[in-house]
Amino acid sequence: MSRKVDPQRLDLASYAHHFSVDTQFGDVDSLGHVNNLAVARYYESARARFQMGVFGDDMFALANPLRVVLVENRTSYLAEVHFPQALVVGSGFSHLGNSSYVCSQALFRDGVCVGLCDATLVSVVDGKPAPLSEAHRQLMAMRMIAPQTA
Amino acid sequence: MSRKVDPQRLDLASYAHHFSVDTQFGDVDSLGHVNNLAVARYYESARARFQMGVFGDDMFALANPLRVVLVENRTSYLAEVHFPQALVVGSGFSHLGNSSYVCSQALFRDGVCVGLCDATLVSVVDGKPAPLSEAHRQLMAMRMIAPQTA
Amino acid sequence: MSRKVDPQRLDLASYAHHFSVDTQFGDVDSLGHVNNLAVARYYESARARFQMGVFGDDMFALANPLRVVLVENRTSYLAEVHFPQALVVGSGFSHLGNSSYVCSQALFRDGVCVGLCDATLVSVVDGKPAPLSEAHRQLMAMRMIAPQTA
Amino acid sequence: MSRKVDPQRLDLASYAHHFSVDTQFGDVDSLGHVNNLAVARYYESARARFQMGVFGDDMFALANPLRVVLVENRTSYLAEVHFPQALVVGSGFSHLGNSSYVCSQALFRDGVCVGLCDATLVSVVDGKPAPLSEAHRQLMAMRMIAPQTA
Repeated sequence: MSRKVDPQRLDLASYAHHFSVDTQFGDVDSLGHVNNLAVARYYESARARFQMGVFGDDMFALANPLRVVLVENRTSYLAEVHFPQALVVGSGFSHLGNSSYVCSQALFRDGVCVGLCDATLVSVVDGKPAPLSEAHRQLMAMRMIAPQTA
Repeated sequence: MSRKVDPQRLDLASYAHHFSVDTQFGDVDSLGHVNNLAVARYYESARARFQMGVFGDDMFALANPLRVVLVENRTSYLAEVHFPQALVVGSGFSHLGNSSYVCSQALFRDGVCVGLCDATLVSVVDGKPAPLSEAHRQLMAMRMIAPQTA
Repeated sequence: MSRKVDPQRLDLASYAHHFSVDTQFGDVDSLGHVNNLAVARYYESARARFQMGVFGDDMFALANPLRVVLVENRTSYLAEVHFPQALVVGSGFSHLGNSSYVCSQALFRDGVCVGLCDATLVSVVDGKPAPLSEAHRQLMAMRMIAPQTA
Repeated sequence: MSRKVDPQRLDLASYAHHFSVDTQFGDVDSLGHVNNLAVARYYESARARFQMGVFGDDMFALANPLRVVLVENRTSYLAEVHFPQALVVGSGFSHLGNSSYVCSQALFRDGVCVGLCDATLVSVVDGKPAPLSEAHRQLMAMRMIAPQTA
């Protein structure tokens, strides 16, 4: 049942992009910990900023013909998070396909990894999957968690 | 990259529990569709009610020694959802382990499956994984998506 | 400190529009009740649907030159709400100005009013306050909580 | 219709407590700006941390007999907020009653006030309004936006 985790994924230094998150009062649910989907929001926030460094600050503008679509999101919860803990999200890429790719992230509390997230995304232009441009591909290659093996 | 899906998973009739969801204005994000994590909330809401039918209405009470902990959440987005569409979430179990199990769900719009979710959960008592009781196991067995093969 | 409330505001029959809301697991906060801003979301959801009956189903479309802007939101909490209670939001108008108006709402649990909300909104065209059209004004007049006195 | 605002309320220096907020991708709604209730979350987050400086870090613990209950929340929107702008929330007290009080806040973008919030709260012990202790009252008096007149 449990997911095998590459030790590299548990190390903040493996990730190209670091984003600080403060847990908020409203993130806590009735079980007294930060709600699972509130944690998922931390990944989303970090991923948005991380990807703006690749696709540009206007990547979410409706006028932009390029759109990045989430097709699968896999989140692992390794330990509970509580308010008002401070957290850091590490973000990088772990797979580069033709039009699809994987953004892999980890959540850290005091340097300890408390969660993982893998988002599979697809580059879409005019509603159809479109190959990643060479320029984007180069920027992404510099942000890989591990060198891609052929 | 894309996930192979058992056709059974795309059929609402496969799921023991049906829960109606109205999309809300606040669920829409800047891309003009229902936000991915708002969709994840629909699954969470349906899962909470579905599981209350197995573990009891007090399953989220802090005084309850039994706690069900989410360890992994995997969500697939098959099609966009828009406000003010009406949706139905189907919920069932797809795996019963000793203390862990998988709750599998699907989201339907006008009978068409637009998303899937698989949540791996663990039964915990006093902070430690604890085997599912025979009573719970029987209730869960009646709500399987497919007969478990030995 | 406490707000004087017109008894009419506490009666669901005073409101032109009724909207059913199911509380959700994720709406509950660490205090064990439905979070105050989750309650505010119920009002927002009901208000969106209520206003679509006046301004049209495309009122939130970005292409629509008319935009309704919230300038003030005042929410009163009369009693706690808990999961999984079922609620009803009543919505009506309580003031019609030239370009601004007030949408007044109340939240009911088993017929008892547990909260009030007054949203002051302004009709805006091309970024500037614009008088409400006669057609809209007539539709709004039919949905007043009380006849407006001159 | 429009609220008269004391100029002091528009000045960050009037507030005892400052809290930095980063807007997030998920806070943006279909109108392309930060959703009104996402803004309300910023105030809630700042208010929670501000009040922990008065009532203690355990103020939200369920075991704490003292509970601070929100009875009214009034939020004014002076200007739109967009992602990924950085904001600051200023928090102070503007009224101290026997058991009730008002926490007044303002939201700033590049030093310009873009919103106001006034939350009326009541100190409750064992479910009943209870006078604020002298110790809490002193801590609150030091955090007033303006000296209270007798």
